[in-house]
Amino acid sequence: MRHSSSGVGPAPTIARSLVARGLDSPRGVAVLGSTGSIGTTALRVLDRQRKSFRIEALTAFENAALLEEQARRFEVRYVGLVREGRHRPTDWRTGVSCLVDAATLPEVDIVLNAVVGAAGLDATLAGLRAGKRVALANKETLVVAGELVTRAAREGGGEIVPVDSEHSAILQCIGHRPGVEVRRLILTASGGPFRGWSRDRLEHATVADALQHPTWQMGRKITVDSATLVNKALEVIEAHFLFGVPYDRIEVVVHPQSIVHSFVEFIDGSVLAQVGLPSMELPVLYALTHPDRLSDDGIVPFDPVRASPLTFERVRSEDFPALALGIAAGRQGGAAPAVFNAANEEAVALFLEGGLGFGGIAKAIESALTTIGSLPAGDRASLLEADARARAHVQGLAHRSGRPVSSNS
Amino acid sequence: MRHSSSGVGPAPTIARSLVARGLDSPRGVAVLGSTGSIGTTALRVLDRQRKSFRIEALTAFENAALLEEQARRFEVRYVGLVREGRHRPTDWRTGVSCLVDAATLPEVDIVLNAVVGAAGLDATLAGLRAGKRVALANKETLVVAGELVTRAAREGGGEIVPVDSEHSAILQCIGHRPGVEVRRLILTASGGPFRGWSRDRLEHATVADALQHPTWQMGRKITVDSATLVNKALEVIEAHFLFGVPYDRIEVVVHPQSIVHSFVEFIDGSVLAQVGLPSMELPVLYALTHPDRLSDDGIVPFDPVRASPLTFERVRSEDFPALALGIAAGRQGGAAPAVFNAANEEAVALFLEGGLGFGGIAKAIESALTTIGSLPAGDRASLLEADARARAHVQGLAHRSGRPVSSNS
Repeated sequence: MRHSSSGVGPAPTIARSLVARGLDSPRGVAVLGSTGSIGTTALRVLDRQRKSFRIEALTAFENAALLEEQARRFEVRYVGLVREGRHRPTDWRTGVSCLVDAATLPEVDIVLNAVVGAAGLDATLAGLRAGKRVALANKETLVVAGELVTRAAREGGGEIVPVDSEHSAILQCIGHRPGVEVRRLILTASGGPFRGWSRDRLEHATVADALQHPTWQMGRKITVDSATLVNKALEVIEAHFLFGVPYDRIEVVVHPQSIVHSFVEFIDGSVLAQVGLPSMELPVLYALTHPDRLSDDGIVPFDPVRASPLTFERVRSEDFPALALGIAAGRQGGAAPAVFNAANEEAVALFLEGGLGFGGIAKAIESALTTIGSLPAGDRASLLEADARARAHVQGLAHRSGRPVSSNS
Repeated sequence: MRHSSSGVGPAPTIARSLVARGLDSPRGVAVLGSTGSIGTTALRVLDRQRKSFRIEALTAFENAALLEEQARRFEVRYVGLVREGRHRPTDWRTGVSCLVDAATLPEVDIVLNAVVGAAGLDATLAGLRAGKRVALANKETLVVAGELVTRAAREGGGEIVPVDSEHSAILQCIGHRPGVEVRRLILTASGGPFRGWSRDRLEHATVADALQHPTWQMGRKITVDSATLVNKALEVIEAHFLFGVPYDRIEVVVHPQSIVHSFVEFIDGSVLAQVGLPSMELPVLYALTHPDRLSDDGIVPFDPVRASPLTFERVRSEDFPALALGIAAGRQGGAAPAVFNAANEEAVALFLEGGLGFGGIAKAIESALTTIGSLPAGDRASLLEADARARAHVQGLAHRSGRPVSSNS
């Protein structure tokens, strides 16, 4: 079959690794970040799918009480607590090394990485190098180190399957079709709590305003990222690495109802969409079973009449400048995405603690990218260097502005 | 992998025949009904795809002038005119036998069957028995003779690919996944010109009213079928035979914009949809290339913002009784679908000629099904018998009602 030369291919290492795996016997799963929002969602799903999956490892940052309850309920043998010095059962592992250890256990087939922030990177790399499927809810991993992660998958035979609802939708829509048949990705964005706000009003939005997400219940950091549209910028970069689609063929459209989770346009002009009520249960389940599907009655059925009307709007790019900044960082490549991510993490922390206004988040990111966005990114060490310099840069801005800075930062 | 016992399988013969075929060299295509609405659409598509497809045969009912122009433009060797006694080039074939002849030419790989009504059945059967792909725009074929057609595909190694926009959408959404993973089909219906009409007003709708379809430009018969929702009943039966999904897992939802062409729900609760502007070009192209896709810039790109809002409503089943009648006929099986189809064809002809009111169409269908709906359907002859008796029954009703009956009927 002749294919149009305008077709695009997925990043070869990731595409090749997204192959069918049979599920004839229960698969071992490690859940990293099991006490967080995605982690607890995953355990609800895994509880319903005990015949197909067995939890071999759980790790959490510091919520020892919930972790102990989870470990008991699922009879988990490997339990890790990242934060040291906490009261805990004696047979638990502690310290950040538990993430890599859990991700590489021989009895683990699938690593669900729901660790927040850049701390999840080493576990992703280790899992991929050990040939595991990494179900990735930790989008920073791909944004910060897309090249490294791609290489680890290629070298180790591992595979990356997204847990984000948008990327899960895209993966489902592409199905088994080759990347050359994909013409365009259209990621949907709820628009966040500030979709209808004027630019002036946005400048003075409070923390409480930013945490009122209209459709998704999520952690604080990602909720602020939804308000700034930084989250959507991270997702565009993630989509670029996952599916190998150039940035000029990835678009974002605002869809306030969060029912259509994304669109894929093919070279013949046909468009597929994945739809459903906003819930992370399906993306988690699908990341475990892809490309197969398992029967699950726990996911609320979609009713188009109840979901009606579905509306779509253009992004107000001038009023939400962080989206364009992030996409530009993605196009620039090198360490720019890492700088974008680190500057944003630092700025959001400052915003949540009162050290920065809402409008200051994008300004801080822009300043960091302008100043140090062209750092190289040849290896893990240079990425960490870029990350650290971006954080220091944002801290410096906040100090100079004379606003209070939190003791954590 | 364990599959839910609630999963459903596609009709084995059709599912097995929907296999990938390479398109390394141009494929020969026969277009039956080339001067009609679907036929002319197909020729626009084939004109853009001359490197992948070559038209080996064209047939038309009686429009010799357009047929001659088409045959010249595509340098077609086999040309057939169904209606005899017309002025025509001497090397053309004439008479209804040209349909079967064209469908079975050795140089033909794909038969695009866009013949209106039951006359297309023999060509479909012959094409399937000869191992061809039959791209089926003639939905009556599957409704009237689903069992026969299925058997012909199984025995001859042919395959059926739908050209209807709804069924093309479903085929694209299912992709390569096995039928046991499909939980539910949701066919969309524009609702036709009478969507918002009261029951009283509906009873006295005129022919001109019925021919004003809000979103699709189609022939007169199918446009009236859209107004009564008979068309949607035919599509439910067609979906049942194509995809092997039981009737209680096929739903219809009204979607006035005709942008979402149908939904497929999988056993894990995920729902895929195929969307795009209302145009038959994509279903025609996809029926030729399935499961592959060819680059085509002739199809207007989908823009979710321009398409917004997308709305969905329940079907007003009590006010559009033909839908439930048709689905009941499908469930009953045997000759009931053939009786439903023939009674409708006859009633629509009477309506278009003033011999029956709009509300009389469903009443005539119901009367025919009550009287002769339980006829057997063991073979082609018994289907033709049921067809003839249904037509005679509707004619008799019209005569008894004392309304004028057209000279054609």
